[in-house]
Amino acid sequence: MTNSAITDYPSPMSHLKWSPAEKAIARKAFNLALEQEFEAVIRETKKMAAKVEHPSDLWELEGYLTQSRTKIDRLYDYRYSVLPEVFGTLIRKGRLREQDLHGLRDDKLEYIRAYANF
Amino acid sequence: MTNSAITDYPSPMSHLKWSPAEKAIARKAFNLALEQEFEAVIRETKKMAAKVEHPSDLWELEGYLTQSRTKIDRLYDYRYSVLPEVFGTLIRKGRLREQDLHGLRDDKLEYIRAYANF
Repeated sequence: MTNSAITDYPSPMSHLKWSPAEKAIARKAFNLALEQEFEAVIRETKKMAAKVEHPSDLWELEGYLTQSRTKIDRLYDYRYSVLPEVFGTLIRKGRLREQDLHGLRDDKLEYIRAYANF
Repeated sequence: MTNSAITDYPSPMSHLKWSPAEKAIARKAFNLALEQEFEAVIRETKKMAAKVEHPSDLWELEGYLTQSRTKIDRLYDYRYSVLPEVFGTLIRKGRLREQDLHGLRDDKLEYIRAYANF
């Protein structure tokens, strides 16, 4: 599947059927990525806070937290209709590896790979 | 001067004349309070960040920083027309003592005391 196939295809991902086993794999991978995302933000927050010396450092930390919250809210959307895009993006960003999704069928993996290379 | 005098008097504080000596005292007291305010926020930020364990702790810290910035922006207004109210509020909040304003004339101190007891 090419990248253009994603946009050309009419609402394709919402037509995919997820088996109970696939849903369990998806939920586990999603939670793993989200947990690692939070751990990274927590580590960075503690590092930034420890270095705060001036008022501007405080507002820099505030901006970092707001930006992190917004990014996480936007990216981590657990609706099956968008999940292949979410997983593709997480792979592209290095938050998941394809083997974390082992067990998903090719109809999903093709979309996921396409979004991973988007 | 009573509290009601503050609101009854038409734009009173903007009529006050500040001598160069008074301006120097005002600036020093203002900066002292602002510096202590920032130090308190920095201390609290480091304390909160050190205790962060869960994602909700991150957003609590973000909320604290946003609220602190907003409060500081609103309160620390160095216009002579509002400065007696600012100083009165800072005394009420324990950020300044009246002796930090020693040298201001009674026309200002009366307003400051009234706002301190507002």
